[in-house]
Amino acid sequence: MTPFDQSRDMLGRRALTRVSEARTILLKRLGNLHPTAERVVLAEALDRVTAEPISAAEDLPPAPRSTMDGFAVIAADTFGATQSLPAYLNIAGEVLMGAAPEGRLERGNCFRIPTGGLLPDNGDSVVMLEHTVPVDETMIEVVKGIGSGTNVIKTGDDIRAGEQALPAGHRLRPQDLGLLAGLGIDEVGVYRRPRVGIIATGDEIIDHRQPSAVGKIRNINSVTLAALAKRSGATVTDYGIVSDREEIFFSTVARAVAETDLVFFSGGSSVGVRDLGERAIERLGSPGILVHGVTLKPGKPIIIGLCNSTPVFGLPGHPVSAMVCFDFFVRPALSVLSGERTADCPPAPSVSARLMRSINSAAGRLDVIRVRLVRDHDQWHCRPILGRSGAISTMSRADGYFLIDEDSQGLAEGESVEVYIYQ
Amino acid sequence: MTPFDQSRDMLGRRALTRVSEARTILLKRLGNLHPTAERVVLAEALDRVTAEPISAAEDLPPAPRSTMDGFAVIAADTFGATQSLPAYLNIAGEVLMGAAPEGRLERGNCFRIPTGGLLPDNGDSVVMLEHTVPVDETMIEVVKGIGSGTNVIKTGDDIRAGEQALPAGHRLRPQDLGLLAGLGIDEVGVYRRPRVGIIATGDEIIDHRQPSAVGKIRNINSVTLAALAKRSGATVTDYGIVSDREEIFFSTVARAVAETDLVFFSGGSSVGVRDLGERAIERLGSPGILVHGVTLKPGKPIIIGLCNSTPVFGLPGHPVSAMVCFDFFVRPALSVLSGERTADCPPAPSVSARLMRSINSAAGRLDVIRVRLVRDHDQWHCRPILGRSGAISTMSRADGYFLIDEDSQGLAEGESVEVYIYQ
Repeated sequence: MTPFDQSRDMLGRRALTRVSEARTILLKRLGNLHPTAERVVLAEALDRVTAEPISAAEDLPPAPRSTMDGFAVIAADTFGATQSLPAYLNIAGEVLMGAAPEGRLERGNCFRIPTGGLLPDNGDSVVMLEHTVPVDETMIEVVKGIGSGTNVIKTGDDIRAGEQALPAGHRLRPQDLGLLAGLGIDEVGVYRRPRVGIIATGDEIIDHRQPSAVGKIRNINSVTLAALAKRSGATVTDYGIVSDREEIFFSTVARAVAETDLVFFSGGSSVGVRDLGERAIERLGSPGILVHGVTLKPGKPIIIGLCNSTPVFGLPGHPVSAMVCFDFFVRPALSVLSGERTADCPPAPSVSARLMRSINSAAGRLDVIRVRLVRDHDQWHCRPILGRSGAISTMSRADGYFLIDEDSQGLAEGESVEVYIYQ
Repeated sequence: MTPFDQSRDMLGRRALTRVSEARTILLKRLGNLHPTAERVVLAEALDRVTAEPISAAEDLPPAPRSTMDGFAVIAADTFGATQSLPAYLNIAGEVLMGAAPEGRLERGNCFRIPTGGLLPDNGDSVVMLEHTVPVDETMIEVVKGIGSGTNVIKTGDDIRAGEQALPAGHRLRPQDLGLLAGLGIDEVGVYRRPRVGIIATGDEIIDHRQPSAVGKIRNINSVTLAALAKRSGATVTDYGIVSDREEIFFSTVARAVAETDLVFFSGGSSVGVRDLGERAIERLGSPGILVHGVTLKPGKPIIIGLCNSTPVFGLPGHPVSAMVCFDFFVRPALSVLSGERTADCPPAPSVSARLMRSINSAAGRLDVIRVRLVRDHDQWHCRPILGRSGAISTMSRADGYFLIDEDSQGLAEGESVEVYIYQ
């Protein structure tokens, strides 16, 4: 348990939930949701998540092959062969690429074989060209003895029929597609991409393609958050900029919740808009609000809710705060909705860097400090970028961020920090 | 200079080029190529590379705004205010979201203002709601003095008109799109995506969708390499599986060189196919072959060429070797062809991990050791995956790789290595 809870303090303000606790509350609820599956062809399967374990239906390779240019032999015929005491073998045939070898290899004989050529029946190994000396067109000297299996990839050496090729919940990388291609699998069961609904709210917000107007500010959040959601493998429905009049706002959120798998709205950070968002989440289904506000800077005023089976996030209106909240809460939620086994996820990309100036932090909050990375020989250094959470340019100038945790009051110049890269 | 050169040894074999030198030779040649530019809208600009520096045409924000719910004031009116000696201000108006404030703020007055509201003329700061006490509907007490600019984001605080928003050669991330949206920019000049042509060769290779057949092996490389090229931002033309008969092979490579910006073929590692590839590159234009074979394992037999302005790579037939060659040579070449400023690239994602078993390496070659990552509390450990470079399953089981450089003969269990993540 943590010292925080959801009750209000004596000024009527809600206490904040610790970031790690808020994430646990959210992800625990999402663990019960089961994404639906669909089948896609390999050419469209990159970055999709497997919905079932995939087994090899055949051996790979299906038959033993040479890994060298040389001669297929029976290893026993070469035992003890040296430069001064070579073994003599008759050239009894030649293996052609992509064709079945003609005839069977008998003791005392060898077949010419190229890299990738199929081993002839009875052959068990391949002598490299470099370890042979031609005697005439029908005979070679083998000047080095080899063991059975040398320079051969055997049937099923890569993967055996019946063996699991890939587990369920695995995000498909280029090499995973290659393995499936090798096994002759062109169709794969994957989870449907999560569908994300994005709503911007606030009477001051205008579309970024509109000309500037007094008192208006262009919609940055829908652009950045849609790009982040796509990066996480989601499809995005943009519900546009919606009035913060109660019924209009509510009906749009209700539509998004009905049509997509995860919804977030971002809007003014004013108390009025925040209350509006809370009321919408509570009206839309149980359990409703899970978390009001977290110990995160920037990102404190996030609201996290669950309306029946759809997570709904009220993100702060400031662009930097909204992005930070996406990183900490929305992305992990999307990973769960994608069906990704978290144990299977690669570590978040990061580098160790030395802090170029001291930085203070209030205890009790997790600080996200944007930085610029500077390389000095083999060492990375990082320079904190100071600026308000409303200033998107600070995010654009940043290469990544590091964290100062709730228990720390700051870090000194020269200390080593782990910088997570904005990709 | 290095101790290696391109001449042949006394057995007629070419000496290998060191990996770093081979990369330098390649990238230096590509530095003279200039990708063409095109214009795209913001919704399609994620991950594209800017072809020109982009400047702000207007201030962001265009006018001063409040960052808090409270009262817009003239700071001087609050100087010295405390709980026991508050300043009294008349409520002379209210700023509505998205609208121009009505009237001008006079000394002794204040305007109600929400977060994001536009500061009224003559106002210079905002007192937080929490630092005021209502007297009646027309007057407040301010219980804390504030300085000019408090709780206000000023005109151009995010970025000023005329300032550079983004440099040329910058790969657009979600926050960069957000900055452009904030500035009202919907169309951006980017470099055209590099076009990659992929050819598989070898009479033993069949399409992965075909049923298995004796002596045949399914085309893994075109699938993995196409996925890697797409990950690097390229568009891919797959020229299919081409016979290794000289004229057919040559005419396909010639067509690919004419139609795309970077070509690679992968095929049998047999001497015959290798020679075929070398002859094709030499015939297609100068300077022709730049590098024959590198000190890389797996990946040694790579051929790197440049036919007029098109880089052409002969990649090894073994799937793991081909992928490693992509990582070391093709990806950096694609980055240059994308117009990306390398100083601007994020570091390759990696983690430090402790080696779970000792591993040997021959001096004079750069070893790429695939590993499985294992987390133990706060520490990553890595277990080398042993297996032939023909076995794609070893790549699929790998989370990443570390390097043992040319000068090292191996590493001991427990040593720390930098593991680059396969994403």
